[in-house]
Amino acid sequence: MDASGFRRLWDEIAGIGLADTGGCLRFSWSAADLALRDWFDAQAAERGLRVETDRNGNRYAWWDLAPEAVVPPGAAPDRRAVLTGSHFDSVPHGGAYDGPLGIVSAFLAVDELRAAGAEPKRPIVIGAFTEEEGGRFGVPCLGTRLMAGVVDSDRARALTDPSGTTLADAMREAGADPDALGPDPERLANLSAFVELHVEQGRSLEAPVGVASAIWPHGRWRMTFTGAGDHAGTTRLPDRRDPMLTFAFAVLAARKEARLAGGLATVGRVEAVPNATNAIASQVTAWLDSRAPDEAVLSEILTGFESKVAERAKRDGTGFTISPESETPIVEFDASLRDRLADLLGGVPVLPTGAGHDAGVLAAHVPTAMLFVRNPTGVSHAPGEGASDEDCAAGVEALAAVLRDLAC
Amino acid sequence: MDASGFRRLWDEIAGIGLADTGGCLRFSWSAADLALRDWFDAQAAERGLRVETDRNGNRYAWWDLAPEAVVPPGAAPDRRAVLTGSHFDSVPHGGAYDGPLGIVSAFLAVDELRAAGAEPKRPIVIGAFTEEEGGRFGVPCLGTRLMAGVVDSDRARALTDPSGTTLADAMREAGADPDALGPDPERLANLSAFVELHVEQGRSLEAPVGVASAIWPHGRWRMTFTGAGDHAGTTRLPDRRDPMLTFAFAVLAARKEARLAGGLATVGRVEAVPNATNAIASQVTAWLDSRAPDEAVLSEILTGFESKVAERAKRDGTGFTISPESETPIVEFDASLRDRLADLLGGVPVLPTGAGHDAGVLAAHVPTAMLFVRNPTGVSHAPGEGASDEDCAAGVEALAAVLRDLAC
Repeated sequence: MDASGFRRLWDEIAGIGLADTGGCLRFSWSAADLALRDWFDAQAAERGLRVETDRNGNRYAWWDLAPEAVVPPGAAPDRRAVLTGSHFDSVPHGGAYDGPLGIVSAFLAVDELRAAGAEPKRPIVIGAFTEEEGGRFGVPCLGTRLMAGVVDSDRARALTDPSGTTLADAMREAGADPDALGPDPERLANLSAFVELHVEQGRSLEAPVGVASAIWPHGRWRMTFTGAGDHAGTTRLPDRRDPMLTFAFAVLAARKEARLAGGLATVGRVEAVPNATNAIASQVTAWLDSRAPDEAVLSEILTGFESKVAERAKRDGTGFTISPESETPIVEFDASLRDRLADLLGGVPVLPTGAGHDAGVLAAHVPTAMLFVRNPTGVSHAPGEGASDEDCAAGVEALAAVLRDLAC
Repeated sequence: MDASGFRRLWDEIAGIGLADTGGCLRFSWSAADLALRDWFDAQAAERGLRVETDRNGNRYAWWDLAPEAVVPPGAAPDRRAVLTGSHFDSVPHGGAYDGPLGIVSAFLAVDELRAAGAEPKRPIVIGAFTEEEGGRFGVPCLGTRLMAGVVDSDRARALTDPSGTTLADAMREAGADPDALGPDPERLANLSAFVELHVEQGRSLEAPVGVASAIWPHGRWRMTFTGAGDHAGTTRLPDRRDPMLTFAFAVLAARKEARLAGGLATVGRVEAVPNATNAIASQVTAWLDSRAPDEAVLSEILTGFESKVAERAKRDGTGFTISPESETPIVEFDASLRDRLADLLGGVPVLPTGAGHDAGVLAAHVPTAMLFVRNPTGVSHAPGEGASDEDCAAGVEALAAVLRDLAC
């Protein structure tokens, strides 16, 4: 596998859903998604892989065991499939690598295995999961969450995109059947492992390829800062109770606490009331996103942040409340699988990620691992996201070695 | 004049346009405004004052010279009128005193003068100006600005309220003629003085009544903070270019520079892009409102602010630009009139204000003064705005003394 071999296949999908911002508009069940699914089917056909779509719209290409065409439900433990793959869908104007890299690399890894004469003892399956980003219907990892039964299918069918189209209608329009949505425990039970290859999303990986240790615990908190709306031109500074000051302090405090504790904290969303140039705000609402290597660090950030902001609010004469909107505990990937992969790949870096993935959902049901490919810019969810062709080729080699180890 | 006498007249309008927030919804040309105009006409009729509406919708009650019924245009200097009054309209959910206090006090001052047997040598005129707050059509002091010819009448007619109704249509619906809007230099030339009584809007006045020295120079600046949109969960802190941090610093820096220099600075309006909880913002836009006792202090605040924020932006790796949206120079009220009033009232405090007023517009054309009535809460443009009945009665006495001095 060389860099040009990777580039050749990669370029086949480069133009699909490409916006003039340089970012991708690849929303699930859109025309771009259907074009990517067609490309997936064509790649499978070229390699003699059997294509299947599950009840939740996730697409698979099966390298079945010869001479058995299909492993039936209830496969014996030593015949359960090894699943790899990722997702096609993007965030609005997102990068090209987040998702598709794992699918393109899987087809190329199958080519590597075949060129080397590998003979799988388990089926190898390439998966393309639906709506991983939540970029159209708002719920990330929707395809795998439905499979795992952690999102209700009625709720899923009623989800709407920004134009008001429901998931059910979008699926129907794309020729899929929304009534089939639901848990798929048998499918999960027939998997021996899931390995997702993904572009790294920060700049934490300094080698071409690494293995994931965990998905950081993370959460979103809603913050409300209350004060006294008043005239910006006449209210003396000592008489003010200006919640914008407390909010500003909180933005800087979040960053500081995260830096000191060794985690991440971000304020990216803010709404002021009445949001008028010549009025002291009466209220500011904002959201804190924080993630950390472990629950203790996350809790340290939150505790430090809350006490410092509360103290500042007292000085400002403002009110401050904070409440969680979502809190996701740490996902530790299967330790023996992780170590096996790291050893197999010659001691590549083992590192955690702050981002959610389908692998994080499936890890509760199947021994799961992730391979990361180095991201030189560290940018993600934006057009600057990328990886060198050389590193991507190294990713394909690593994935092929892992699939051979797990399935052959 | 005692407190209960003030309260009696004050209560007559208390319920007009009163919202369940305790604030007032008294927008120009609305039903509440027309009810207030009817009340104005009734008060004038009760006192035998002649009611007149000018081409710009400002209403007047004339205490004409006897035996001459009306002073004609081109009055000799010693027959030019003394104008007092203020406005009825409010900001959304604003306080009850800002504006109406000057009109109610004017009627009561006329009563005081008559009870004392005063015989004016000039007409005394009570004015109620239109759209002083800009609370419906967005341009403050619209009635006096049109009169002074500093707002174009075509532009004024086309102004829209939040529901899309133009000023022209609102006037027509209220039975007024928008085609008449325009400069009124003859009216201005026939005035010898304008005295506006107004509730003080901070807590700067510690006596019942004070005299205004000036309206502070003030301005609004648009600030743009640019950075790099990225994933809140994966971007390492040192790799970030987060404009929210620079914005937060700017909010705190504005306050600090204002405090050190002795002026005011407020950030009450902010908009983040993409304004998503799990994304580092790519851009934050915000507005700075700053006011100061003089241009030097205002410039000191701005200079200090700009250099400190630019320095911080450099550290954050973000972009920062600031540009004025409006800059209003200082209005110094007529010095001899100011001193005459302060002496007459027994050396009451002389103080500036940070708020704009019709008096600020007319000061360029007519010797103008303002009387302030103490505001114990310091709140303005919100339901907490107020003044004690005792202080309001003292305001009426002061206004009566001033009118007697200027007109009798």
